[in-house]
Amino acid sequence: MKSIILDERQFGTHEECGIFGIISEEKQELARDVYYGLFALQHRGQESAGIAVSYDEDKVAYYKNMGLVNAVFHEEELRLLPSTNVAIGHVRYSTMGSSNVVNAQPIVFYGRFGRMAVAHNGNIINAPNIKKRMIYKGHIFQSSTDSEVLAAAINDYSTESVEQGIYDACKNFVGAFALLVLSGNKLYAVRDRNGLKPLIMGQKDGNIVFASESCALDAIDAEVIRDVMPGEIITVNTDGSYTSRYFAPPDKRPCIFEYVYLARSDSVLDGTSVYESRYNCGKILAEMCNIDADIVAGVPDSALVSARGYSDVSGIPYVDALSKNRYIGRTFIQPSQSMRENSVKIKLTAFRNNIQGKRLILLDDSIVRGTTSKKIISLLRKNGATEVHMVVASPIVKWPCYFGVDMDTKEQLIGGYRDAEEICKLIGADSLHYLPLEKLAECCGCGNFCTGCFDANYAVDLGNFHSEKLLFE
Amino acid sequence: MKSIILDERQFGTHEECGIFGIISEEKQELARDVYYGLFALQHRGQESAGIAVSYDEDKVAYYKNMGLVNAVFHEEELRLLPSTNVAIGHVRYSTMGSSNVVNAQPIVFYGRFGRMAVAHNGNIINAPNIKKRMIYKGHIFQSSTDSEVLAAAINDYSTESVEQGIYDACKNFVGAFALLVLSGNKLYAVRDRNGLKPLIMGQKDGNIVFASESCALDAIDAEVIRDVMPGEIITVNTDGSYTSRYFAPPDKRPCIFEYVYLARSDSVLDGTSVYESRYNCGKILAEMCNIDADIVAGVPDSALVSARGYSDVSGIPYVDALSKNRYIGRTFIQPSQSMRENSVKIKLTAFRNNIQGKRLILLDDSIVRGTTSKKIISLLRKNGATEVHMVVASPIVKWPCYFGVDMDTKEQLIGGYRDAEEICKLIGADSLHYLPLEKLAECCGCGNFCTGCFDANYAVDLGNFHSEKLLFE
Amino acid sequence: MKSIILDERQFGTHEECGIFGIISEEKQELARDVYYGLFALQHRGQESAGIAVSYDEDKVAYYKNMGLVNAVFHEEELRLLPSTNVAIGHVRYSTMGSSNVVNAQPIVFYGRFGRMAVAHNGNIINAPNIKKRMIYKGHIFQSSTDSEVLAAAINDYSTESVEQGIYDACKNFVGAFALLVLSGNKLYAVRDRNGLKPLIMGQKDGNIVFASESCALDAIDAEVIRDVMPGEIITVNTDGSYTSRYFAPPDKRPCIFEYVYLARSDSVLDGTSVYESRYNCGKILAEMCNIDADIVAGVPDSALVSARGYSDVSGIPYVDALSKNRYIGRTFIQPSQSMRENSVKIKLTAFRNNIQGKRLILLDDSIVRGTTSKKIISLLRKNGATEVHMVVASPIVKWPCYFGVDMDTKEQLIGGYRDAEEICKLIGADSLHYLPLEKLAECCGCGNFCTGCFDANYAVDLGNFHSEKLLFE
Amino acid sequence: MKSIILDERQFGTHEECGIFGIISEEKQELARDVYYGLFALQHRGQESAGIAVSYDEDKVAYYKNMGLVNAVFHEEELRLLPSTNVAIGHVRYSTMGSSNVVNAQPIVFYGRFGRMAVAHNGNIINAPNIKKRMIYKGHIFQSSTDSEVLAAAINDYSTESVEQGIYDACKNFVGAFALLVLSGNKLYAVRDRNGLKPLIMGQKDGNIVFASESCALDAIDAEVIRDVMPGEIITVNTDGSYTSRYFAPPDKRPCIFEYVYLARSDSVLDGTSVYESRYNCGKILAEMCNIDADIVAGVPDSALVSARGYSDVSGIPYVDALSKNRYIGRTFIQPSQSMRENSVKIKLTAFRNNIQGKRLILLDDSIVRGTTSKKIISLLRKNGATEVHMVVASPIVKWPCYFGVDMDTKEQLIGGYRDAEEICKLIGADSLHYLPLEKLAECCGCGNFCTGCFDANYAVDLGNFHSEKLLFE
Repeated sequence: MKSIILDERQFGTHEECGIFGIISEEKQELARDVYYGLFALQHRGQESAGIAVSYDEDKVAYYKNMGLVNAVFHEEELRLLPSTNVAIGHVRYSTMGSSNVVNAQPIVFYGRFGRMAVAHNGNIINAPNIKKRMIYKGHIFQSSTDSEVLAAAINDYSTESVEQGIYDACKNFVGAFALLVLSGNKLYAVRDRNGLKPLIMGQKDGNIVFASESCALDAIDAEVIRDVMPGEIITVNTDGSYTSRYFAPPDKRPCIFEYVYLARSDSVLDGTSVYESRYNCGKILAEMCNIDADIVAGVPDSALVSARGYSDVSGIPYVDALSKNRYIGRTFIQPSQSMRENSVKIKLTAFRNNIQGKRLILLDDSIVRGTTSKKIISLLRKNGATEVHMVVASPIVKWPCYFGVDMDTKEQLIGGYRDAEEICKLIGADSLHYLPLEKLAECCGCGNFCTGCFDANYAVDLGNFHSEKLLFE
Repeated sequence: MKSIILDERQFGTHEECGIFGIISEEKQELARDVYYGLFALQHRGQESAGIAVSYDEDKVAYYKNMGLVNAVFHEEELRLLPSTNVAIGHVRYSTMGSSNVVNAQPIVFYGRFGRMAVAHNGNIINAPNIKKRMIYKGHIFQSSTDSEVLAAAINDYSTESVEQGIYDACKNFVGAFALLVLSGNKLYAVRDRNGLKPLIMGQKDGNIVFASESCALDAIDAEVIRDVMPGEIITVNTDGSYTSRYFAPPDKRPCIFEYVYLARSDSVLDGTSVYESRYNCGKILAEMCNIDADIVAGVPDSALVSARGYSDVSGIPYVDALSKNRYIGRTFIQPSQSMRENSVKIKLTAFRNNIQGKRLILLDDSIVRGTTSKKIISLLRKNGATEVHMVVASPIVKWPCYFGVDMDTKEQLIGGYRDAEEICKLIGADSLHYLPLEKLAECCGCGNFCTGCFDANYAVDLGNFHSEKLLFE
Repeated sequence: MKSIILDERQFGTHEECGIFGIISEEKQELARDVYYGLFALQHRGQESAGIAVSYDEDKVAYYKNMGLVNAVFHEEELRLLPSTNVAIGHVRYSTMGSSNVVNAQPIVFYGRFGRMAVAHNGNIINAPNIKKRMIYKGHIFQSSTDSEVLAAAINDYSTESVEQGIYDACKNFVGAFALLVLSGNKLYAVRDRNGLKPLIMGQKDGNIVFASESCALDAIDAEVIRDVMPGEIITVNTDGSYTSRYFAPPDKRPCIFEYVYLARSDSVLDGTSVYESRYNCGKILAEMCNIDADIVAGVPDSALVSARGYSDVSGIPYVDALSKNRYIGRTFIQPSQSMRENSVKIKLTAFRNNIQGKRLILLDDSIVRGTTSKKIISLLRKNGATEVHMVVASPIVKWPCYFGVDMDTKEQLIGGYRDAEEICKLIGADSLHYLPLEKLAECCGCGNFCTGCFDANYAVDLGNFHSEKLLFE
Repeated sequence: MKSIILDERQFGTHEECGIFGIISEEKQELARDVYYGLFALQHRGQESAGIAVSYDEDKVAYYKNMGLVNAVFHEEELRLLPSTNVAIGHVRYSTMGSSNVVNAQPIVFYGRFGRMAVAHNGNIINAPNIKKRMIYKGHIFQSSTDSEVLAAAINDYSTESVEQGIYDACKNFVGAFALLVLSGNKLYAVRDRNGLKPLIMGQKDGNIVFASESCALDAIDAEVIRDVMPGEIITVNTDGSYTSRYFAPPDKRPCIFEYVYLARSDSVLDGTSVYESRYNCGKILAEMCNIDADIVAGVPDSALVSARGYSDVSGIPYVDALSKNRYIGRTFIQPSQSMRENSVKIKLTAFRNNIQGKRLILLDDSIVRGTTSKKIISLLRKNGATEVHMVVASPIVKWPCYFGVDMDTKEQLIGGYRDAEEICKLIGADSLHYLPLEKLAECCGCGNFCTGCFDANYAVDLGNFHSEKLLFE
């Protein structure tokens, strides 16, 4: 895996990440806790992993590299990272092309208050403008990430203190961000004013812990304290004491797609269980759809829960229709031309005995480009399903996401300019059913989400960023 | 991952592997098919992977290394392996200590009939005796595996032809083996006289294919022809023609543990669907147990199907109680002392909302050492389960396996010298229920299995190998 | 070779590097020329190597890593770097502790004029002050090198053009620097006002080339045009035209240690052949010393030439006394305790037959810490030399270097507070003879060198930087 | 560096290696001594390195890999090899194509007397016949080396003891071999009956040491005891006692090319200093040639000594004409087409000032294919030499070597079918002078060498192996 660094498009939309931080009174081997935390967040990023720890009062040691958490970190790396009071870590999402170690996090630098490390999940949509402004003032940037812009901006604003710098900088950021900042012996946790990205606070044996999702707190046996609030900056000291401050009035609009697909089902986000939201979607769909069929199944892994919800309400028996190869990873070799059309077979195989001669209801979490759905339906028919009714636990994805979820331009979305009927034909289903947005929101337990990808009702006013061209030139 | 090669115990019981082979009329990039096949068999071995192909009539090129299939093979390695008429591959199970590249397969060597490659799944229990005899005759062995002994013996017996060598050698092997042999332009497939290890034959576009499990045939879109029969040697030519011959009268005693745990649920072994056998186990257990509880759940992944069978028959609702981190791999770092007791948390987390205040029936496929069961039950109780009734879809594991399944000595087996009641206490369950052996066999669709690990009724008469000491000195 | 990045002392004195740049009218595979150039400059840095090339008008691709040039770059890396009009490269010196890829060069960044790459040889002694000032203004720094400060400062000053930025920044740099800057389709070459570090300009088939030493021009068959002058900025266009400008009146004070030890003997620096300067040192020493001995020898490799000069003038026969293992590299394992005192034997062995029973004159280029000299003399005596007279082709090293040569504090220098007689006793020689500074300067062909390490007459007024503490806090 | 293992030509002529072994009374970290010994023998093989040590009475641990000694072994590998009484090591020569880890040594195997390790330098020319015979008996071979054949044959013959097996096997080997065998707690050292390959015995602190050359004894500070004699088997016990036995009457015919080129100049082979033999060659050439010229120079590194001898006798001043880049290694990238003709420049540059306008006598150790000589002469002329007289410190190489020196077929040798005059024209020299064979032998201090490459007077009667075709089919 060569990493010649080519010049990249400045800022992409494809940033999804997991962050984890911990602070303790005594110096401990905190890098190990971060390791387990990142491991639990691996589903949020398989491209790169990194850990930074403070030591000797004002110093920071770090290690980051391309690959899965357990490929990047071994006993040796963990042992080489000093015992510490504060540690943060980061995993980054794998997308083609822009993956190289220069873009890995945490970002560690020397600035106004000495050494600082920053881990960021999200997408600052006005980063190009901030970068332009900072370059105008003489700054330089060594990567193409908005996270480096964010880090430089926080430092630039930190004229009095790091906390004040975070405060002032965050006021200027437009977009999505959950942030962990390590500086001196303090750990700062921040969430954007809409709470677009999740960030939860916990504690374990007196240590304060932050993570993108509650499942990472579970992994190290930490207890949940509460979610970081939209617009909130929490400053934690080594003794476990902390202060809270708001850089903006919270306007809670968390990303609804976290429930649909991104988060792990055993996480609880902003008080709502991801698992239950998915189960309830299935239940509501069963009430709505009233499809005459013999069996219900789900596309593994995320839609299995919804399928069970559907089955429980409809009374139609739940079966396993598809088996997923659990060793599929990012370095998988592309099939040769002759096999390409069957590529889905390498990832998924069908339980012929379970579906043969059956009319099947198939639950999936969402349909983005539609290519996989088409292949799955074809696979099921070849294995004897007489009907395949596709039931989707979310509405039609019609708009791109500007806040870090890997969705393409409107043109590339199968639902970008099509209705359910047209999509149904394209993917070759017997019928196609979507969950209305209000029902989805209801299942996710909170009235006010960012639902931009479904209805263009983005958390942030994109008035000044109204065309992609403008945004990413 | 340093690979200083230390001298190892000669032959271990811990060999479980996957094999795959393919032969075609025209020279093709068959290594790629083997790659996908091995990938589908990855659950049978995560320690090493290798592929050997014939070329230029009598030559063999190969590549093998430690690691997962997609870590060992990339585009470059596949491209460097020549186009070929015959290719075989192998994945090897990961056990501590004895893992190094010297033991990886296929084994490739020069012998009586030129260059030959062998891929072996199983355990030849009289390998130490054969080795001793061959060393007496002047042979040398460069690894500690029984597979090298098997390869050398086949060559030694091949005085007239490779097929005859295989025939005569196999008559002398005691134990379990599914074999693929590449020699010249022929591919040989062999299964021991008891059919202890699975081996299935398929075809795709005129190419003949062999694999440990049918799921690997599915992965490359090949159709099943039939299982290789116990005691059968199938010799395939490049034109797809093949001959069958028996080196011994078949005495079919396939390993029942393949259904319980080893095989992928979407495979069909000797005509019986693994999925269905597991589902049926759950159903029968429900009929037998009659436990008064609120919910039914399974330990992921293999016991989820049984749990569903239990639920369907008992009417007790099925829920997800445990979530499994799907990134757990072989290089995972051991938790620090303070976390060790909670190590199961890194792999499994509980869905608190689903189980809180509930009396839970938990299905698992088997209990070997019992340590994981104990931790899981404790985790479930901490998350609010008021009762945990453990239901196991197989009998008490009482005896070690001599044919390649990773089971320890009788002493290390929790059921080695204990009955269900004692085990129940040790793992901390409210009640514990095992599936009687005859019921398990019934679910697996075939009257006559090797059930040695459950009742010491091994396929092979261990008279001459009656003590472990004798076997492995 | 793990590269956990620990926080480092800000700026060390131990920076010695080689740089190479080339610009052509047509897009060519210039990275290959840089590769060969860096290879010829390998003696100036074995720690890391890097190449940056411009492409698509305003983009820059680069690759850098730890290791020797031919360990970092293979066909694959060279092929992946795009064809280009401008390319620069860098090799960095190996010192313990501070070696990691974050400090490797070229430094590539986005700034006022888009993408820019900088390769630097030297030491900016007011870098801490500049850094402090820039941090005060809000800049951040991601490494601990003065080269990043230099790059950031050049960009900061580039308000109108890159050339003007280089001009203004260089006026503010105190210290030693030879610089290559790649920006857009231009290549800039700069040398500090004292010309402390060498930089030579050549041409090949119309392409303009710069290198730290002329041997790198020879390596790609380029012809020498001339040395870059102290204080000069040369701006080269792709058509081969160039303009020259001085940011300061030249005050030529090149580092005399380049001739003594640093440069390759087949280079010509500022018009003087390094080989001849060394040979002449030997001749003068012979005239001066008048030692009664049987044979003359040199410590390989750099002092062999001086020994020959000594022999030619004195008439005392030249012999090979020591053989050097040419595979010694940076990763060599330290000998165990019992062997440590003999560690010089691994690098050097003595030709017993040549020296046995002989009174020996041994030439060395310089004595810095004295430990190696002591071991060599002991080795020679053990192999039969009856007398060892040490003759050094430079004066006593008495002062540290602030401009990039790896010399320690005054305390660590054997000559820091000692005269020749005391040093002679410490290293165990029969007599010890140094070359007077004026003689050395004479041999190096130029009247006005930086000779700070010998007489504290540094090229730069260290008034404001008079204590190390101040300099490197 | 991918190592797909292709099927290789069985046995090549291109085997040159270094071996080292040590045995001690107390268990020690002997792998470290082997490391330093191999390091001193690095010039005999840069392709692969390996070390095997005995432990726990009858066990052997080993590590081997592709690369230089200090790339293969680091602290970690040395630490992982157990403390031991006996250790052997091997470095292997780099030739294109056949380099992969399967061919690396020591060869370690289980045989009649348990675990054994073998390190071999040389070429068994009847290995194909032995191999054929052993395959006929049922043996298998996993590599294409004659060393595996040698190891298997020794074991096969070891019906009573290892020593007797070595004895009987060696009687049957035709060709060149210096051998170290580790078995149990004994170390065996063997040299073929002609003593074609060097092997020397030393001692250090009571430990007995063997090495291909005396320079490796120097490296660990061991004292020379004596050379192993042709046809001798020395068996050493851990207490330092040893017995000697001859498997054949010695017919001393050591390889003369060891003195010409292969050995390190600071080694003493069979009592003759390599350095002095080379120096004396230069002296004799000066007496013979009587060339009218201004200066004498040598091709670095091996011919510098001869040039000095020439200068000392002729009175013509010695100068350095060529500088060699000491970082050239095996992974060096081939120059692009445009640079290929100048490729010698990357390795060698000329000291223009030393040779301009001068008539030059250039000493080289030998001319094999002649391509490098041609380039060097052209380079010298371009740098101003008015005449270049080539003086070669050995005779015309006219015949291939069958015993392990990398020489090509007669057709590829420039002197295969040409006399000095024709060669002189081809390489573009003003005159060309070779050293007569009897003079060379005289300089090497021993009357009876294998001089097959010069006069077809091979140590071994090639009657039965008279055509290459027969030998290597």
